[in-house]
Amino acid sequence: MTMQKTPLLMSRLLDRGAWIAPDEEVVTLTGGGTHRQTYADTRRRAGQLANGLLDLGIAFGDRVASFMWNGWRHLELYQAVPSIGAVLHTVNIRLGAGDLEYIINHAEDRIIFVDEDLLPILEPLAPAIPRVERFVVCGEPGAERWETSLPNAIDYEDFIGGYGDAIEWPEFDENAPLGLCYTSGTTGNPKGVMYTHRSTYLHTMAEAMTDTMGLSATDCACAVVPMFHAMGWGLPFAAAMLGAKQAMPHRFMAPEPLTGLIASEGVTVSAGVPTIWQGVRAHLEAEPERYDLSALDRLVCGGSAPPVSLIRWYWDVHRIEMIHAWGMTEMNPLGTVSRRIAKRSHLALDEDARFANVAKTGLLSPGLEMKIVDEEFRPVRQDGKSLGELLVRGPWVCSEYYHDPQPEKFRDGWLVTGDIAAIDAERYLVIADRSKDLVKSGGEWISSVDLENHIAGLEGVAQAAVVAQPHPKWDERPVALVVPAPGAELSEGGVLAHCAKQFAKWQIPDDVLFRDTLPLTATGKLDKKAVRAELEAEGYRLPDLRGEAGAPAPVPAFASTPAPARTA
Amino acid sequence: MTMQKTPLLMSRLLDRGAWIAPDEEVVTLTGGGTHRQTYADTRRRAGQLANGLLDLGIAFGDRVASFMWNGWRHLELYQAVPSIGAVLHTVNIRLGAGDLEYIINHAEDRIIFVDEDLLPILEPLAPAIPRVERFVVCGEPGAERWETSLPNAIDYEDFIGGYGDAIEWPEFDENAPLGLCYTSGTTGNPKGVMYTHRSTYLHTMAEAMTDTMGLSATDCACAVVPMFHAMGWGLPFAAAMLGAKQAMPHRFMAPEPLTGLIASEGVTVSAGVPTIWQGVRAHLEAEPERYDLSALDRLVCGGSAPPVSLIRWYWDVHRIEMIHAWGMTEMNPLGTVSRRIAKRSHLALDEDARFANVAKTGLLSPGLEMKIVDEEFRPVRQDGKSLGELLVRGPWVCSEYYHDPQPEKFRDGWLVTGDIAAIDAERYLVIADRSKDLVKSGGEWISSVDLENHIAGLEGVAQAAVVAQPHPKWDERPVALVVPAPGAELSEGGVLAHCAKQFAKWQIPDDVLFRDTLPLTATGKLDKKAVRAELEAEGYRLPDLRGEAGAPAPVPAFASTPAPARTA
Repeated sequence: MTMQKTPLLMSRLLDRGAWIAPDEEVVTLTGGGTHRQTYADTRRRAGQLANGLLDLGIAFGDRVASFMWNGWRHLELYQAVPSIGAVLHTVNIRLGAGDLEYIINHAEDRIIFVDEDLLPILEPLAPAIPRVERFVVCGEPGAERWETSLPNAIDYEDFIGGYGDAIEWPEFDENAPLGLCYTSGTTGNPKGVMYTHRSTYLHTMAEAMTDTMGLSATDCACAVVPMFHAMGWGLPFAAAMLGAKQAMPHRFMAPEPLTGLIASEGVTVSAGVPTIWQGVRAHLEAEPERYDLSALDRLVCGGSAPPVSLIRWYWDVHRIEMIHAWGMTEMNPLGTVSRRIAKRSHLALDEDARFANVAKTGLLSPGLEMKIVDEEFRPVRQDGKSLGELLVRGPWVCSEYYHDPQPEKFRDGWLVTGDIAAIDAERYLVIADRSKDLVKSGGEWISSVDLENHIAGLEGVAQAAVVAQPHPKWDERPVALVVPAPGAELSEGGVLAHCAKQFAKWQIPDDVLFRDTLPLTATGKLDKKAVRAELEAEGYRLPDLRGEAGAPAPVPAFASTPAPARTA
Repeated sequence: MTMQKTPLLMSRLLDRGAWIAPDEEVVTLTGGGTHRQTYADTRRRAGQLANGLLDLGIAFGDRVASFMWNGWRHLELYQAVPSIGAVLHTVNIRLGAGDLEYIINHAEDRIIFVDEDLLPILEPLAPAIPRVERFVVCGEPGAERWETSLPNAIDYEDFIGGYGDAIEWPEFDENAPLGLCYTSGTTGNPKGVMYTHRSTYLHTMAEAMTDTMGLSATDCACAVVPMFHAMGWGLPFAAAMLGAKQAMPHRFMAPEPLTGLIASEGVTVSAGVPTIWQGVRAHLEAEPERYDLSALDRLVCGGSAPPVSLIRWYWDVHRIEMIHAWGMTEMNPLGTVSRRIAKRSHLALDEDARFANVAKTGLLSPGLEMKIVDEEFRPVRQDGKSLGELLVRGPWVCSEYYHDPQPEKFRDGWLVTGDIAAIDAERYLVIADRSKDLVKSGGEWISSVDLENHIAGLEGVAQAAVVAQPHPKWDERPVALVVPAPGAELSEGGVLAHCAKQFAKWQIPDDVLFRDTLPLTATGKLDKKAVRAELEAEGYRLPDLRGEAGAPAPVPAFASTPAPARTA
């Protein structure tokens, strides 16, 4: 060949940060303050860790698991494990015992690195995960020596302490596996996505683009999104490649310590789910003078769609750009991003139009392809209105689940995402819903996500969920569950009147239920499955199906509205 | 495999711009004003062009040549030719007849696309390039029909006019060849570098990073660097992928039309060699009120190192960042970039220190590796002082010349660049010289580039060249050739005194020759080979070797300076 076929290995990208910016810091919150080390330290310790793993007999392709918060030792695992050709399985610490047992056994993890404070979650599992040969405990700096009932446990510092840092990373095929993340399945067992060096390398390059997250060596990046969730959305990799400072919250993700970390370390870009930024907003509103956030430039918000009211608040009050990002564990995870000014034509837009764009799911990252299709997999018009199932393709999209192929999720080289979406004339992806969360009423679809985002924009609403409830005539009808902000006074009529400003009569929820909290998934998203399960457990019935009321059941408002034609 | 192995084909990246930003413009200067078309137009016309090429029997891997300025039709070739799996050979229009004949025959070009005004260069070559089957003439819009003595010539619009725009780009191996550029050899014949889809795809992603050129869909990019020079440094590809506006100067690269284009089209980022930006500067200084350059944000400057005085002027006067970029045709071409603030630690630097960094060759692009070695290919210390030959490696570095292997230029998978360089503690590459341009005096090396850049910073100097001249005792001694700015008064003593501020006595040139112009290469760089040839043709001798002078030959000033130890 005429050009070098240098394999796309993450060891090359990750070594660059320590080479370019050896003195730049990786700062982690601890119980006593902060732990600080440089990239040069991180690289040296990753070398020791790698030598330790090799000495333990960890071979090419073997799974090494982490059961950890975001922190410097987790970053060392991110560098060392893939660089020797082993696979880092980042276990979601918020899964239930059954799922944990399943994935640790399914992945055949040989060794688990566990944060000291998480020992009580793992200890009862030990008898059920007998193939794990060793537990490496990441102790709290300065704290007393941990104790555990886990067999064959060793302290992280003892584990790496005996090894030198000199290592030459091996060269191997770029399609070798690198990292394993399980998605919390909606049905059945969790499914594993095995990232490769090639997929993660290309994903890392894409994240460093101006038009995606705009990451730079001049940034201080704070991944609030856990490093066990789609590998921290790739942020720790990209920051390490660039030599950008990293600030890590570890287990201290409540608004106060997190906002304190962002302010004190000069964080310029952070990433997390909407509930994180809603919490930080509430904290900032409560104490508007307390923090200097002048360095903070961008908040990447994904996992679920942020309400436009939240996006606006950060911009209007703090001139912080909320980057709306969408992806999937199956996509490494970056799929689309939506920026305030994403194209030259946006320079001429007013602020309202810009925010309306940011609220859309986003523009496709360079390197990927997407399309929407009907039930027969025929293309659906990209007119912003027609809905279809979203398919994606590209070098960082998965092609099968790990040892669990699920062929119905993959078709002709495309991932069948399970999302119902439109693509508009500006080529924005607009996800209407997860296919299973759409409300199918009278033969028409109602987007629960659209309703949720609209309700969340009402003054006094902290959080909102909309789910379908069964109805004998209309098939399904939407019901809203609303968490009021502290001290806010909300009424069912007020919420419904707010919905009527934006939605057709037949799309408006039949009921509004006020709650103190809503269930969240292990990754901090609204857990619709749990919401539906709660309603079922309560024996919930739609208002017009409650026989005990004296009044006759009201005719649903949408009954007289003719259903507009929609594709798919 | 667990992740999709979607091949890295340029058709996928290039289609994205027309999909995301169909209405964004590609603007080209013409004799009568400007030609304007959208990306949607460009994509449609590229489809027509592709169908025309296929109908002509252009097959996978066949070479299609362009002999053209930067313009919309050249961009259509950039998209259509690689997307059907053929190879675009971008012929350097400034080569001499002998080199042109050599490379067209060596590449076995089947068809040549030629701009109308360049016909007189190609016409006399026709008998010597008999394998070219067809010439497609790109006529000036609105001008009278061209005439040519070239055989089998057809007008571009007639060529594509008969074809539909519908085409599905084929899928093939990502290591397939894409583009062919010949380097103007310093000895022997020009050598071809065959870029692949994979190399150009990865290079395009790297150029879209915040920390390299910071390209964005919100940019208006103007490639002044010719599209026949290392494929326009990749800028047309990256801009097309992002959907950024493009402004193209075509043949109107003199300071006045170029500055006019930049101002009138709202160019935000442009790229060219230092002589271009020196010319624009002089023009702006002559008419400081004429242009509104408020949109212009970045000037990428490469090909040779820009003097720090030029970098400073653009920043101090216009707040335009000059990005110092270094690369080679052999590297697709991006190797390193140097930005005003390239790391977090630079935020604390004063302006002088920042400019000193920008003047260095730069920091390595993510994805590449580099090292400096001695004559036995042993690593040289990266201390900013020790010099060695620069080796580079990575997925967009060439591994052999096209049908001309030259194994001595490649070693253990690394490209032997022919540059003598240091790498400093901040990991900046600092190229001292081309190995053949170093002045080897008294066993020590003197960097001609350092002297040139320093002399160029003297008030009244428009351009400077330093070359070695043979000396019986010292082996070689440096001689400076200086082009004064219009109206400037310079003296040999003034130039030498300026050199003495920065350089040791033994490094100061033995002679200063004033010239009206200096020879430039076909790519606009100082042509040192031609400078040396001119001096030889003139029978030039160093001052202390001129026997006819009555005075005794002066002892070179450096004679008493002990030579400091240097590696390599």
